[in-house]
Amino acid sequence: MRKNSPLYGVKPQVLKVPAYTLRAYEAEVKLNQNENPFDFPEDLKEETFQRYKERQWSRYPDFVPDSLRQRLAEFAGWHKDGVLVGNGSNELLQATLMVLVRPRARVAIPYPTFTVYGLISNVLGAKVVGIPLNPDMSYNVDELISRSEEAGARVLVINTPNTPTGTVLHREGLQRILQEFAGHVLLDEAYYEFCGHTGFGLLEAYPRLIITRTFSKAMGMAGLRVGYLLAHPDLAAQISKAKLPYNVNQFSLTAAEVALENIDRFRPAIEAVLREKERLGKELAKVPGFKVYPSEANFFLVEAPVPPRSLFDDLYRQGILIRDVSSYPMLSRCLRISVGTREEDDRLLSALQASLGRQSEAGARSARESI
Amino acid sequence: MRKNSPLYGVKPQVLKVPAYTLRAYEAEVKLNQNENPFDFPEDLKEETFQRYKERQWSRYPDFVPDSLRQRLAEFAGWHKDGVLVGNGSNELLQATLMVLVRPRARVAIPYPTFTVYGLISNVLGAKVVGIPLNPDMSYNVDELISRSEEAGARVLVINTPNTPTGTVLHREGLQRILQEFAGHVLLDEAYYEFCGHTGFGLLEAYPRLIITRTFSKAMGMAGLRVGYLLAHPDLAAQISKAKLPYNVNQFSLTAAEVALENIDRFRPAIEAVLREKERLGKELAKVPGFKVYPSEANFFLVEAPVPPRSLFDDLYRQGILIRDVSSYPMLSRCLRISVGTREEDDRLLSALQASLGRQSEAGARSARESI
Repeated sequence: MRKNSPLYGVKPQVLKVPAYTLRAYEAEVKLNQNENPFDFPEDLKEETFQRYKERQWSRYPDFVPDSLRQRLAEFAGWHKDGVLVGNGSNELLQATLMVLVRPRARVAIPYPTFTVYGLISNVLGAKVVGIPLNPDMSYNVDELISRSEEAGARVLVINTPNTPTGTVLHREGLQRILQEFAGHVLLDEAYYEFCGHTGFGLLEAYPRLIITRTFSKAMGMAGLRVGYLLAHPDLAAQISKAKLPYNVNQFSLTAAEVALENIDRFRPAIEAVLREKERLGKELAKVPGFKVYPSEANFFLVEAPVPPRSLFDDLYRQGILIRDVSSYPMLSRCLRISVGTREEDDRLLSALQASLGRQSEAGARSARESI
Repeated sequence: MRKNSPLYGVKPQVLKVPAYTLRAYEAEVKLNQNENPFDFPEDLKEETFQRYKERQWSRYPDFVPDSLRQRLAEFAGWHKDGVLVGNGSNELLQATLMVLVRPRARVAIPYPTFTVYGLISNVLGAKVVGIPLNPDMSYNVDELISRSEEAGARVLVINTPNTPTGTVLHREGLQRILQEFAGHVLLDEAYYEFCGHTGFGLLEAYPRLIITRTFSKAMGMAGLRVGYLLAHPDLAAQISKAKLPYNVNQFSLTAAEVALENIDRFRPAIEAVLREKERLGKELAKVPGFKVYPSEANFFLVEAPVPPRSLFDDLYRQGILIRDVSSYPMLSRCLRISVGTREEDDRLLSALQASLGRQSEAGARSARESI
């Protein structure tokens, strides 16, 4: 590369990493990002605005958001010094990997899973050790342990429930991993409120466990970017060194405080999502040719009888956005569908019927024509 | 370190880095963070609330904030693909260093300057090559070039105007650096609106130049965390790989759009700050024993005739917060004072008189007693 090129000196592993992009689709029915279909409650929005009006925008946020940390500590039942607040849980995942991962170190990541873990690891110069899920998309605990250990991985990143599969790593499995794997285990529990399973109970006994969670999903705050991390206080102090000062803006901090003070108000939306999930799962399973994987989160992984891209496009033309995950390893026939409101899901289901009807007709026609 | 310690495996350079902390002081008169004493205009706050009310909080922000990038491109007069938006300019500085700096690579940083550059570099495993400013706190361009080159630095980070000194690196100096230094130059122009000097004109000719700016200071948005970066589009594309998706929350994006659409509304506050700065500079220079360094930003570096810590404490007891920078290299007798409103600065000036009067009396008494 020429010395006066703007890219001269850019780290080779960065040049190699494909950019994580998402085409900005717009649609009436948005079932592509596992968002909460029920918005943050209106009166709590108003409360947030009122409180925020009293703050000067020109003043920095709290250096460390101590009052929010205190509330989170009480909420989660953990030491305040072991709680960090981030600009979305992604920032906390990044900070954790920044302090734990040397260049060329191994980071073990089950697949298929959330793309960002591998992306951050690559940018940091680590080598990703991919460990496949079982064919039914459940976690293979023996493989996770043996392959992480063999590779000498420093960190094992586990998303539970896992996107895009909906899989949970249960407590016994996690405990075995913590006993037998010598590195840190970074547990991303972004969707835990939808299933209740958490590794939290093991945090005290296993100080190499780190848990991240988010206000984006169950709390309906994806637009505001607030995540939190629970870890041994000594480890949290190190991770916080890789977090930038003032990393969460004051408006989002205010909204998170309001949410925590009114945590019971978010329960009905979670329960509505879970009821609707039951129904959607059953209905999707009735769609001819569809395979629906069991899910413990607010979305389903489905295998389609037609090429995922064409189904995605066809639904999009009907105003419905789902996620085509066919480029993920093991998922070449799959799509991911978030649970929406009953009305949204009804629109999805009829669009699916229409689309598959058309596609199987076209398939039959082309089969006839080829005879 | 024992294997079951939570810190086993934490990178040694992280363990060594002292945490960047700031005690959370509260005071009536806050002149410690170079904030804008004039808040974001009330009617623009209202406009931001109105627009934000129409968005669902439960939906993710735009993956890439394209409309804001477009507005920033027009505002700055740069290619849209060369503009990145970050969660404060700190995030963009971090992303830039993440893609450019290998472990053990050299990062050249003049001193004294903003602590965060060295902190990020250390966490990334780089070696910081510190290059002192001249004794009058001006930039020594020859030294910057020769010492960066000698050390084989990949990046030279320059804050202009520089905190805590107020120093500007002028265009000729920057141009010489870009001609003679082979690495990237990362120019942090957080305070540029207060002086108008910018390296922007050199961006087209020197694709190894990267400029960061912020909405925190002149635009009165420190609480909302919005920064932006200008660079060659190819380089910006690489830097964006180290930025996390959805890194700026939708409320702050909305406020930044409102600010840019009403950019003329911020001019009067900037001009008021500059007028008040003139006056404050003259008044500070009259304080017996005070040395005031020339500043092109919205703050002053001052050398005090008494120990900085005791002056800081004494002012704090009087409800006034300034920044004790005596732990910075070269600044053992110094404090940094942000320009406030006329009323705030008057309170500072009388508190200073009172404090120095008491301290010189105490000094005289202890001198008498020691005879």
